[in-house]
Formats: sequence, C-alpha cells, structure tokens
Amino acid sequence: MTGAGYTITVRAEYPNRPGMLGRVASIIGQTGGDIGSIDIVQAGPTMIRDFTVRVDDEEHARLVVQAISALPQVRVHQVTDRILDLHRGGKITVTNRTPLASRQDLAAIYTPGVARVSRAIARERQLVWEYTIKANAVAIVTDGSAVLGLGNLGAEAALPVMEGKAALFKEFGGIDAWPVCLATQETDEIVRTVELIAPAFGGINLEDISAPRCFQVLERLEASLDIPVFHDDQDGTAVVVLAALRNALKVVGKRLEDLRVVICGAGAAGMACARMLMHAGVREIVAVDHKGIIYEGRKEAMNPYKEWLARHTNPHRLQGPLSKAVEGADFFLGLSVGDILTVEDVKKMAPDPIVFALANPDPEIKPELAEPYVRVMATGRSDYPNQINNALCFPGLFRGALDAHARCINMDMKIAAAEAIAAGVSEDELSPEYIIPSIFRREMHQAVAQAVQEAAIRTGVARL
Amino acid sequence: MTGAGYTITVRAEYPNRPGMLGRVASIIGQTGGDIGSIDIVQAGPTMIRDFTVRVDDEEHARLVVQAISALPQVRVHQVTDRILDLHRGGKITVTNRTPLASRQDLAAIYTPGVARVSRAIARERQLVWEYTIKANAVAIVTDGSAVLGLGNLGAEAALPVMEGKAALFKEFGGIDAWPVCLATQETDEIVRTVELIAPAFGGINLEDISAPRCFQVLERLEASLDIPVFHDDQDGTAVVVLAALRNALKVVGKRLEDLRVVICGAGAAGMACARMLMHAGVREIVAVDHKGIIYEGRKEAMNPYKEWLARHTNPHRLQGPLSKAVEGADFFLGLSVGDILTVEDVKKMAPDPIVFALANPDPEIKPELAEPYVRVMATGRSDYPNQINNALCFPGLFRGALDAHARCINMDMKIAAAEAIAAGVSEDELSPEYIIPSIFRREMHQAVAQAVQEAAIRTGVARL
Repeated sequence: MTGAGYTITVRAEYPNRPGMLGRVASIIGQTGGDIGSIDIVQAGPTMIRDFTVRVDDEEHARLVVQAISALPQVRVHQVTDRILDLHRGGKITVTNRTPLASRQDLAAIYTPGVARVSRAIARERQLVWEYTIKANAVAIVTDGSAVLGLGNLGAEAALPVMEGKAALFKEFGGIDAWPVCLATQETDEIVRTVELIAPAFGGINLEDISAPRCFQVLERLEASLDIPVFHDDQDGTAVVVLAALRNALKVVGKRLEDLRVVICGAGAAGMACARMLMHAGVREIVAVDHKGIIYEGRKEAMNPYKEWLARHTNPHRLQGPLSKAVEGADFFLGLSVGDILTVEDVKKMAPDPIVFALANPDPEIKPELAEPYVRVMATGRSDYPNQINNALCFPGLFRGALDAHARCINMDMKIAAAEAIAAGVSEDELSPEYIIPSIFRREMHQAVAQAVQEAAIRTGVARL
Repeated sequence: MTGAGYTITVRAEYPNRPGMLGRVASIIGQTGGDIGSIDIVQAGPTMIRDFTVRVDDEEHARLVVQAISALPQVRVHQVTDRILDLHRGGKITVTNRTPLASRQDLAAIYTPGVARVSRAIARERQLVWEYTIKANAVAIVTDGSAVLGLGNLGAEAALPVMEGKAALFKEFGGIDAWPVCLATQETDEIVRTVELIAPAFGGINLEDISAPRCFQVLERLEASLDIPVFHDDQDGTAVVVLAALRNALKVVGKRLEDLRVVICGAGAAGMACARMLMHAGVREIVAVDHKGIIYEGRKEAMNPYKEWLARHTNPHRLQGPLSKAVEGADFFLGLSVGDILTVEDVKKMAPDPIVFALANPDPEIKPELAEPYVRVMATGRSDYPNQINNALCFPGLFRGALDAHARCINMDMKIAAAEAIAAGVSEDELSPEYIIPSIFRREMHQAVAQAVQEAAIRTGVARL
C-alpha cells in the first residue's frame, strides 16, 4: 500500500533550549519523514510540541518515531495517526427518523401503535416495503476472504472496509447499508445466512468474497432471493469498465463489435467483465490467468468458471503467455497483479491501444511507462487520470433498484447503469485523459439511479 | 389492542353549502368517532376538508369512513393514518460519522487508508473494538414467532417492532442497533445465523422469539459467543420486575426472603423472573400456567423448562388452580393473559398484597377492580401508575456491557441493573403509586449503565 494520506502526529517533550527543535526536525528529515505542521502543546522550562509527519508506511512511521525517541533529552509522549483516529468508534451510526421525547411518541412508534403496522404487514406482506426500512436497506455481506487487495483477513478485519462502503452507499445513494461480516467462509453457510437475514433488506451487496466461491454464492442467492443481489467485485467493476470503454472507444474511433480484447485475470472481476463485454457486443476476447491464455482443453488451474470462459472466448484457440495474447489487441483489461504487462507487450498491440490496468495498488503497467505507446490509459488509482472506481456504479445502481422495489438486478439494469455513467462525461469534455466522471458528480449518481429504475420497470422486475 | 393514539385523517369533498359540514360532523359522531381538528384544504364551489378523527381500532376506522362515504354528495378522497405515516420509510437510518466530500476524505475512510486499519485488526483482532462500530453495535434478532402480544406474524411483520426497539436503544442508550429479522423459526438455524453474523456486533438482543425455543436459543448462544446475548422478553422483564418489587417491598415493609410469590405464566418472562427472584433471595415461589399449579410429577403440558421450575419451586407441593396458588401469597406476578385473576383471588392473598398484572394489553386483573384490596399495583400499561417497561433496562444494560467490552451479561450485571433502576425512585418519591421511574429519566439509564459496567469489571467479564 502506498502512503496516500499516511500522516502521524508525534508529541515530543524536550528541554526548552535553542537548537532542540532543530535537532528533532532534522532527525525527522534524516529518516525521510515529511514534516507538515509543528504545534506548541505546552511551553515552559520543558517544551511539548506536536510534530505532524507524512510517512510512507507503518514501518517508516516506526523508524521515524524510534529516531526521535533515541535523541538525548527527548521524550515521545504519544503518537497519533489521523487515519486510525478517523476510524475510532466506527464510521457509521444509526439515527432515529422520528422523535422519541414523550409517551405519545413512544406509543406511536413502539407499543401499542406499532402493533397496527405489524398486523398490516402480517396481512399484506408487501407493505413491508412501505412501512419499514426495507425499501432503503442494503446488507453489505462479506466473509472476509478477499479484503481489498490484501487477501483473507477474516470477518473482523473486513469490517472497516464494509463501513467505508456503507458510508459511500449513504453519501452517494442515500441508502442505509449495514455491514454483515460472516464468521464463515463456506459457500453453503454464506448462502443460507444471507437467505435468512434477507427479510429486513431491500438488497444484498456481496463484497470481498474470493473467487471462485463468490460465483456460486451470487448464483445461488440470485436464484433463491426475491431482492437484488449484487457482487460489487464482479458486476460493479464490469459496469464501470464498460462505461469507461464506451467513452474510450469514442476517443479512438473504434466499435465494440470490432475489438480484440485481452482480459488479464480470471477472478471475480475478470469473469464478470468478460460476460458483460460479450453481452454488450464484443466478439473477440482472450482471457489470460497466471498460467497463460485460457483455451478449451487446458488442464492446468481450471475451474468450472474458467471452463465456461474457455468455451465462450478465444475463438482462434490461442495458447501461450500474456505476451502472445496481446499481439494485435485493441484493448487490454488488467484485473490481476502489478507490473506484469511490459512496454514490449504494449508495442505489440493494435494501433491506438486502450489499456485499463486496474490492479491495486500497483497497476499491471505503470502509466508513465505505458503512456508513449497507449492512446487511452486508465487505472484503479486516484493519483492518475481515469480512475475506474466501483463507487461510480453501486450507489446509483442500488438506488434505482430499490426505488423500483426490484426483484433482482438484471443485465439490462447493469447496461443502463454503464450507459448513464458513460454519459456523465459530455462529448465536449471527452479526452484520452477524461473518459470517466468523478464520483463526486452527484447528478451522475442520480442519472444512474433513474436509468436503472427505468430498466427495471421496462424488463418487468419492478414491483412498483 | 386498545386505541391509544389511533387517529385517522379523512379528506372529504362536498358542495360548499350551509349544513354540509354539520352533516359530516354528525355522522362521525354517530359512528363513535371523536373529532379532533377540521381543516380546510380547498374552498370554492366545492369544499375539501380534512377531518382528524380518533377511533378505537381498525374496524371502527373502517365504519367511520364508510359512513362518511355513504352521505349523499360527499366524496372521500383519502384516509391517512398518523401512525402509518410515521412508519413510512422506516424509523431508523444510517448516518455517516466522518465527512466524505473530497478525494482526501475518500482516501482516508476507504481505499487506500482503510487498508491500514484492516491490517491492524488482522494482526490484533481485539482492535476491532476500537476502530469499528462493533463496540457500539447491537443486533436485534427475531424470528417473528412472538411479535408483541400478537403471536407468530413472521419476520417482515416483526420489522417495525425491531426498528422501534432500535430507536429506543439509540434514544436512551446511544447504541447503534440494527434489526435482523430471520426467515426461519428453527432453533439450529437461528443459533447458527446469529453466530455467523456476530463478528460485527458488540452484543445480541434476542426479541420476540416464542418459548420454549427462546430458552434454547439463548443458552446455546451464551455458550458459543464471546459477546453479550440477552433475550429482552426473558431477562429484561425479570430485571424490571425485580427493580419494581424491591421498591414495592419498601412500601409494604416486607423482605424478599419472607415472600410467598405466585408467578402466573411459565413462558419466557415467567421462567426468567422465577430464576432471578430466586437468585435475589426469594425462597417460596409457586408457578402457575394454563393447566394450573406446576408441581413435580405433573404430566400435562410440561417441557424441560417447566420441569426445572417444578423441581426448584413449589416447596409445599401445591396442586390445583390459580385460585389455590394465591392463598396467602404476598406477591402476584402476572405474565400471562388478561382478566384471569379475580377479586376473590386477590382477597385471599396475605395482608398488604402486591400485584403486578403485566399481561398486555389487558392485565390479569383490571387495576380499578383490584385497587380496593391491593397495596401496590403495577401493570405493563402507560395509562396506569407503575408501568413495568423493559425500556427501563435494556438501553442502560447494553450501554454498560458495551462500555466494558463485556464477554457476556451475567446475573451480577442484571442484579446491578435492577438495583440502579430501583434507585431511580428516591425514598422521598416512593409511594404505592410510584415504585418505578419513568423511562424518560435520562440519568436513570446512565446510572444503570454505570452499575452494569462496574459489575462486569468486578466479575471479570470485561475486556477493558
């Protein structure tokens, strides 16, 4: 993880003598710390100051603090960390929507008043959409098996991520999302648990569940539940990739139907992108994993989902490494690991190549290396142009699905979301460095919601 | 359900002629509706008015509306219902605790910043209490099998009640509670589901699960989880009953140890009250269910929990109906159904009898009937003195348990809660009509939390 926003504040005490501040500041600089502010906490015979220091990572922070502590006559009181401080106590909270200040309030929202609402729903189950939180509530479900790019960290470690996701749901979709972090990584148990908690939710967002388990979990829940189930790592990525690709194609003047596409990575996102691109009209895809090109008859490292890919992609039955797959490709879609696409590989692509290198934190190829040879480049990072960010999709997608009281999220709804995201960049704005809107464009999320709701109604999956 | 707060607003249109308003008002009165306000919505050749009418129940509301609609030249546009309106869209919402207005905010609370928090928790699991919502989050879990006094209405119909409970948790305990309404009523599935969702919660509040299933669910979860599990219908009631009883005993000048107690009802609350009263020092309890006194060797309508009761109560091996059990009793605790305790029964009790008739909505005996013969009377209702309300207990109890990062809620913590609730009524205030504080006394909830936290620390179940 690169050090974006990693700042510590070191509170140090030392004798109030000329030269002491310089010594502390120097040692911070010598250990590579980047000093922001220096504040006085207490002045007198001894001085206490807060040094705010930008560091690279945890190890670096430790070294900086160690060096300060080792200075003669300097004592470090405490080290605070802005990001940890922000997370203290969690990032979301439950708030009451109705007052609860009197016996009358209590009688209305709890007993005896609430009994009438319960009986109304018992008589007519669909009223749960009207008189409860269901129509605005989404469960963010994880088993902690694939937390960010960090791997299998477990349910507890996944919770801060799920809270962050819930915060995004609220901020951009107005949705009440609640984290459900499961103490199991067994498909049957995950599926059953989600089925059992579903009555109080209007939608299920699966998150950070590793492949291939996530495919089965999604398929089974889509079959058994009558509310939308969405695995953001799969279809969320696919929707945003399709949106960005549509705009990239306008830049380079090519059509989806004519593209030769290489998808590098056959995990959750790779599989979903392949399916969605095919649905959108792409005819020629070659998928590559750590064992090379996926083809029908390959024996190594296969699973039923890769078998499906093998049957439905790679029409010329290519075999070999990634460097073979990219020959003449128009579009490289990386959903794998950092630094595996070389400059030589990019040079072999068709004219005006498009490269989406979405591995995090390190893209499949560094943008600065690829730039001279690529027409449109996108990454998953916020510090380069064209960030492919799932948060462009899921808040508006779920908003639209919930507003329709949809029974599922179908392909038409996802395609509608992709088109609405793409339309968030106007023809005037469009450029190789601007193919995808910022997530802070509120009207884009509203447009996605509107498009998705209309698609749900059009395709007959809306209850309203 | 009696009509506390049952108000409808009927929007009616009629020709703007003298006498018309009188006709509408008269028919409302004739059908027993109690008119509150009458507002003009639109005046002109035709008049549109909103009539706010207090009614007894749903059937009554229907009759009133029908009668208005049947008037010549009157057209009813719509009927709104204040309580249903209050519930529209649900009663709780998720709010973000940190700003999310810029890329910097995003990088801090979501990727890449959140990765550091996740890794910290993965390394040291206990940090989940510090950097997530866990330490303030409670799951309100129901299977919808015993919704209020209404019976087995199912998960969806239970949701408004769980939301109301969540609102009480927030208002009086500052706790983030989230409804988990299960689509199952099988003990194994309930237990397993709660175990699996537990990582993101600091406590579990079981709610409206029918007996005897609720006993097993509670016992098994208490054994398997390392966070507090509490069934409010059991122990919540028991804590508040004990609190009220302690103060009632001060009024009548008796001691727990000397009491003869009749518990009418051997469901969730009855069982828990028996256990807690015994733990507090009561020596003589006779439990009664719909088949009469529970005694060792009884064959009818028994279950393992009633067997336990039979072995541990009824030292004189009484048999027979309720009217036999109450002979010479000091304290009648009703947790059963309405109107089953007669005035004759009350007359048979010992001098200065205490009657808690907690059946809802109709108490075991109407207070106005019992009053001449009873020294202290309590009910579950807000329209009589001495309301035994579980909301006196659970917000402060969980607040204290969460603040201690407690592993469980043990008997000492419950007794501490009962004593703190009892202390909410000062010696000066204490009277036969005031033995229990109002739930709107904020300082009482704080005192409960403090006492529970101290008990958790004292008994070694606090992590802090």
